[in-house]
Amino acid sequence: MTRKLGLYVAAAALLMPGVALAEDGVSPGVFTANNVWMMLCAGLVFIMHLGFATLESGLTRAKNTVNILFKNTFIISAGILTYAAIGFSLMYPGEFNGWLGWAGLGITTDAAGLTIAYADGGYTYWTDFLFQAMFAATAATIVSGAVAERIKLPSFMVFATIFVAFVYTIAGSWKWGGGWLDGMGFYDFAGSTLVHSVGGWGALAGAWLLGPRLGKYGKGRMTPIPGSNMPMAAVGVFLLWLGWFGFNGGSVLSADPGLTSLVLVTTCLAAAAGCITAMLASWFVSSKPDLSMSLNGILAGLVGITAGADVVTPLSAVVIGVVAGVIVVFSVVFFDRIKIDDPVGAISVHLTCGIWGTLAVGVFSAEHSIFTQLIGVAAYGVFAFGCAMGLLLVIRATMGLRVSEEEELEGLDFGEHGQHAYDFPSSSGLLDELTAPRPVGGVARSSTQLAHSES
Amino acid sequence: MTRKLGLYVAAAALLMPGVALAEDGVSPGVFTANNVWMMLCAGLVFIMHLGFATLESGLTRAKNTVNILFKNTFIISAGILTYAAIGFSLMYPGEFNGWLGWAGLGITTDAAGLTIAYADGGYTYWTDFLFQAMFAATAATIVSGAVAERIKLPSFMVFATIFVAFVYTIAGSWKWGGGWLDGMGFYDFAGSTLVHSVGGWGALAGAWLLGPRLGKYGKGRMTPIPGSNMPMAAVGVFLLWLGWFGFNGGSVLSADPGLTSLVLVTTCLAAAAGCITAMLASWFVSSKPDLSMSLNGILAGLVGITAGADVVTPLSAVVIGVVAGVIVVFSVVFFDRIKIDDPVGAISVHLTCGIWGTLAVGVFSAEHSIFTQLIGVAAYGVFAFGCAMGLLLVIRATMGLRVSEEEELEGLDFGEHGQHAYDFPSSSGLLDELTAPRPVGGVARSSTQLAHSES
Amino acid sequence: MTRKLGLYVAAAALLMPGVALAEDGVSPGVFTANNVWMMLCAGLVFIMHLGFATLESGLTRAKNTVNILFKNTFIISAGILTYAAIGFSLMYPGEFNGWLGWAGLGITTDAAGLTIAYADGGYTYWTDFLFQAMFAATAATIVSGAVAERIKLPSFMVFATIFVAFVYTIAGSWKWGGGWLDGMGFYDFAGSTLVHSVGGWGALAGAWLLGPRLGKYGKGRMTPIPGSNMPMAAVGVFLLWLGWFGFNGGSVLSADPGLTSLVLVTTCLAAAAGCITAMLASWFVSSKPDLSMSLNGILAGLVGITAGADVVTPLSAVVIGVVAGVIVVFSVVFFDRIKIDDPVGAISVHLTCGIWGTLAVGVFSAEHSIFTQLIGVAAYGVFAFGCAMGLLLVIRATMGLRVSEEEELEGLDFGEHGQHAYDFPSSSGLLDELTAPRPVGGVARSSTQLAHSES
Repeated sequence: MTRKLGLYVAAAALLMPGVALAEDGVSPGVFTANNVWMMLCAGLVFIMHLGFATLESGLTRAKNTVNILFKNTFIISAGILTYAAIGFSLMYPGEFNGWLGWAGLGITTDAAGLTIAYADGGYTYWTDFLFQAMFAATAATIVSGAVAERIKLPSFMVFATIFVAFVYTIAGSWKWGGGWLDGMGFYDFAGSTLVHSVGGWGALAGAWLLGPRLGKYGKGRMTPIPGSNMPMAAVGVFLLWLGWFGFNGGSVLSADPGLTSLVLVTTCLAAAAGCITAMLASWFVSSKPDLSMSLNGILAGLVGITAGADVVTPLSAVVIGVVAGVIVVFSVVFFDRIKIDDPVGAISVHLTCGIWGTLAVGVFSAEHSIFTQLIGVAAYGVFAFGCAMGLLLVIRATMGLRVSEEEELEGLDFGEHGQHAYDFPSSSGLLDELTAPRPVGGVARSSTQLAHSES
Repeated sequence: MTRKLGLYVAAAALLMPGVALAEDGVSPGVFTANNVWMMLCAGLVFIMHLGFATLESGLTRAKNTVNILFKNTFIISAGILTYAAIGFSLMYPGEFNGWLGWAGLGITTDAAGLTIAYADGGYTYWTDFLFQAMFAATAATIVSGAVAERIKLPSFMVFATIFVAFVYTIAGSWKWGGGWLDGMGFYDFAGSTLVHSVGGWGALAGAWLLGPRLGKYGKGRMTPIPGSNMPMAAVGVFLLWLGWFGFNGGSVLSADPGLTSLVLVTTCLAAAAGCITAMLASWFVSSKPDLSMSLNGILAGLVGITAGADVVTPLSAVVIGVVAGVIVVFSVVFFDRIKIDDPVGAISVHLTCGIWGTLAVGVFSAEHSIFTQLIGVAAYGVFAFGCAMGLLLVIRATMGLRVSEEEELEGLDFGEHGQHAYDFPSSSGLLDELTAPRPVGGVARSSTQLAHSES
Repeated sequence: MTRKLGLYVAAAALLMPGVALAEDGVSPGVFTANNVWMMLCAGLVFIMHLGFATLESGLTRAKNTVNILFKNTFIISAGILTYAAIGFSLMYPGEFNGWLGWAGLGITTDAAGLTIAYADGGYTYWTDFLFQAMFAATAATIVSGAVAERIKLPSFMVFATIFVAFVYTIAGSWKWGGGWLDGMGFYDFAGSTLVHSVGGWGALAGAWLLGPRLGKYGKGRMTPIPGSNMPMAAVGVFLLWLGWFGFNGGSVLSADPGLTSLVLVTTCLAAAAGCITAMLASWFVSSKPDLSMSLNGILAGLVGITAGADVVTPLSAVVIGVVAGVIVVFSVVFFDRIKIDDPVGAISVHLTCGIWGTLAVGVFSAEHSIFTQLIGVAAYGVFAFGCAMGLLLVIRATMGLRVSEEEELEGLDFGEHGQHAYDFPSSSGLLDELTAPRPVGGVARSSTQLAHSES
């Protein structure tokens, strides 16, 4: 997403005299179309937040659903506000030392921010801000899934706000803000590392510090905790795929026809390939076709292609997706083996495949060095994981990080919100209900499952 | 949405010679991009109807879900058809006396409606119709939430059809059609008053005449009736937020880069601010973080910014959202106190915040007078509330307005549609089931909750 | 979707000198706006796959939901990949004998594919591929609904892959690839026949060969099997309607303002009219307002208008929708009477209304002959039904087509996937549970309904 123009644009300029999308020659029509595309892409990235909310609530237990929805509602709102107040300024500081810069408080523009001259005709200042703000909030949302079903709500809110306001934005400035990694030649088109790995490192820190959910790794073996609403999970992944049209397509920073359409094709091919291989790999591993893994395979392909969507061929995109789909399955197995409990597979999807995608740029694009890509991956890992750990440790020492055992068993919806997500009893809760000792004249009411009806 | 051009356009014209979006100089490229934007916005406003349908079905009880979905399906369809037959003609009559005009039956265009000349290059005649038709149906949908769970289906269908065909459109003509309030200087960019308050007045009339749902205010205190499917409610609000990109963004009536992008930024900032303050205000009031209120805070901010999204600064947008988020919480408490039962908070979101947003234009924009804004608010209040009351009283006297007590208890899904929305028992129904006297050899079947399995 | 330009374009060219969308005179601004529109439409057609997934899972039983979501996830992914490998090349072979052609393996482009010259400024090669790929997968998805709840998963996967890769694409080449039916004057703007009837013939073959679900037509009468999640069904239909903005709007193959906006208007009017008449017709037939039928009425109107959306007037569009809404109700009744069990009504929506829409072009457009339209309908019927039958018979003889009775009763989610879609018991299952003989100290656990809690 730096404002470097890709290969295709150069080619297009040669073939279409007077049609170049560079500084000179952008007509009002092209400017208007570019800005429409970028606003549309901002809307598509926005809808990814609904995708995350539904995916997470579908893959976790019904008793924690309100809590998950609340967190996702909070993050998008807090993310936009902090990005307006300080984030945009930290991430795109203009001239700075390459490590940390600051362009001033708040967002504001003079008439120049609305002209063709602002960004070579790609978009206006306001569009620029909005598109980047929608991106910012995703990094914190990624963490949300991995720490679900056991983190204290206020603790998460503090963590997410600081993470999105400072950690993501300073990290982002190193590359997209024109900082030291950009100067080095590190390449990350739309954020396999800058967004997904950064969020993934936060997810790893959170899941590790919190420890697994009660009962997940008890009795010497792993007990799967199935999701409560698979249609919601599917809605989430399809919306995320759609959102990626904007996430990657908008990262072209204009509607350049050749480049945006190539990016959509590589994006969709990688998603489709990731789906099919994750489907097959998990089928092979567990002897059953697994829906959750197939859905995560789509996300794996999408995260994998994100770093290089504009510089690889469609065939390479398929290969990147194929690899991502296999990696994500084994990564999920791996993290379960080392007892890092990630209810939605966020670490495997965003961190593991984010690293893969970033390195793949070095493999599949002749212009980029895998060594420089590795430096970038490592630098972001040290910074994002370090910051997340530090932040979480401070929060743990002050506010506490994990809810009580009692609250976890009862569900965070009741414990933190005094509310239930559904007016349906859960099968598991119902089973407890039905098998419990039966008092004369009725049935013992479990406050957990049936409290809804009494509130 | 009058075709007056904003400040920014004038500035742009100065800075970009030959780029002005006015009558002369609109290139085919700009025209095409404008029209793409407006068609996209029509699609986004369309999707708000899904947002309303899911929000309402999520926040109400499972036994009334089919009924709610049916109403929302009916309204969008009937709304488009009546708008094509008579609504567009009533709302945009061309030359008229400022109070009531009529441009003829049906929609049709000659080739002129498809040219740059039709609307200064902003869009074609067909796009114009479609965008406005999607708007029209929202006014009736707002009413749907407030009267949910107790109104007779045919009565609602008659009311909604007449309301969308005549009340909304005649009211709209006063401002957007160039009528007397437009002449007076009243300002309502995208419809805080023209759409949301008008719908909100209808909602108030309906909720008041119908009376509260059984059990809501019994025994001298208010008994909350929690929603049955909170993920659906969240889906609804996120889709509504996305839809507002089109609702406000399209009200620019072109894709003017500076103005559309400013509008999206003010819209999203107000939504985010409304969310955070409603979250905090309700947390303070009830000592628990409340998901429904946070979601309604988003809508409050969106409704609040709608009247002035193009004429306020981003900072003012945040302030407008902050106030809206607080107002909506206290408005919900207020209406409960006076025993007006509004299952989804539609009156507080659309009427209260619609009024606030309209007055805020007078506060935050130097060019508009708060006094003129007040006149507009009052005029629409008298007309919309009066028409809704009259209409509902006639319907009550002829068709009846409220379902029988028996049907209300059993649920409208079974009573009106002979169908259930879910193949899951409700927790509350199940509880009755389990605690009911148990006949020998089995369990008493409640026709309400389990009839599904027998149909 | 052939690259013939419609009437309106010619008119526009006359009225806007220098604005013609033909070979000469397309400016970079128009090209960019066109391509943005086409990419947006590709995204909208993509989201139809989520619409199909949610509609199908909502209208079927909870015990088969994972299976349905899995199939839909597979189809979109496999569809994109096979279309990239061979489908695009089969469907648009360039010069060919009119019956079968082949442009070579895979997708690739040189710089020419990215220029204005590629498709008269309408879009780039990559956009072309992506839009068509999203279309392709829909044909197979249509089949999915009709064979739901009883087909073996691997058998369906093989069928769908071959159907989308060969049957749809070869059939498509006859018209949109410039083959023999195109030469004859057959008209199908966006695929009432090429997509919907082709899918519908496959659905008919599948539902017929598989036979009805257990219990559907037992005891000499038809037993309705109600859907398990009506909000999901409504989400599906609204998303499909939105997706049709792209399905039909993108079939203009440019963003030509007059033509695209006309198409959106005819599309929405037909959908709305189909909804209202299906609502009334089913209310008349069953004396209850039926939500499923109303939703199917929307789809009926959409399928009906698809063949002629660009060549009929808005009034004709309403008439086409009105007829489609009535037809779909009686078609559903008819197929139930001949005991072809179609759980979601896919055959009635896509096949019956697809035929109606194709013939309607001959009725409502003076330029097209109903006789030629009939030839097209018949040719596609013979080919698609024949291929589907042949393919399914081979699969039945080798892999088997239908799951065991035991698995069907227990649900395909458990049988094929070892997973459940919801953490809620189904009302029907629960009833069995509660009325089953009760062992001392607890309750008999049904592996079907409660297995979830033990996994």
